[in-house]
Amino acid sequence: MNTSQILKLDPRLANDCFVLGQLKTSQLLLLNNSLVPWFILVPDTVATEIYELPHDQQLELLEEINIISNHMKQNFAVDKLNIAAIGNIVNQMHIHIVGRHVDDYCWPGVVWGADGKQAYQNKNVEEIKSRLTKKLPDVFTAS
Amino acid sequence: MNTSQILKLDPRLANDCFVLGQLKTSQLLLLNNSLVPWFILVPDTVATEIYELPHDQQLELLEEINIISNHMKQNFAVDKLNIAAIGNIVNQMHIHIVGRHVDDYCWPGVVWGADGKQAYQNKNVEEIKSRLTKKLPDVFTAS
Repeated sequence: MNTSQILKLDPRLANDCFVLGQLKTSQLLLLNNSLVPWFILVPDTVATEIYELPHDQQLELLEEINIISNHMKQNFAVDKLNIAAIGNIVNQMHIHIVGRHVDDYCWPGVVWGADGKQAYQNKNVEEIKSRLTKKLPDVFTAS
Repeated sequence: MNTSQILKLDPRLANDCFVLGQLKTSQLLLLNNSLVPWFILVPDTVATEIYELPHDQQLELLEEINIISNHMKQNFAVDKLNIAAIGNIVNQMHIHIVGRHVDDYCWPGVVWGADGKQAYQNKNVEEIKSRLTKKLPDVFTAS
């Protein structure tokens, strides 16, 4: 049994995000705010801080951050990545990978706490998921 | 010659922070805001995104994030770490490692963009630096 299947997603993340699929150690989510491309990695752990993860899982997580960072830069019109592990409100460990553009709704401020949200159309979420499947066939499994 | 000696610190970081010393691949800074313990790692690179770093340097940076995270949790009264690579304003790569407390000035919001600042007294900066030297003798060299 894949341990990732027993990781229950925090209700707030489940409510605010689409579950796109699974990487090796993390679920890949998309925050339902189409104003910026905003992926979230949820590693399979009950730890709340990255330094508490076993070394091997840290390396897997780093690799997944690299993969999604590179995918973001290659496939979305973004000028800068904002990568963060915060977790002040949602206790379950999750890493934000946000693609920022100098003309986006809250540039150069951070997205966390900024006013502004626009829900996705379902077809756009499916496009994002399809592109991940196409570009990352060896590491990403769509939900 | 240690390549770290040729890395010029961005003027804004130099103005806003104390340079505490040097780790293997990063300078270690302390943001001059005593309301929260707020370290900043500045890796020796001209790249602006973590995924662009050579793999070996990524591993060194990850190790330094671990070291400073652990030091923060062991030596400061913090409930949660906030770790982020943002860089929307300051182009030079820098990683924030912020110790958060449920009673701090902007909890549970993020520190970036939050109102609130209190400069350190010099003796407190020296105490923080001395503790790093004492606790991390093998990896930290004070400025």
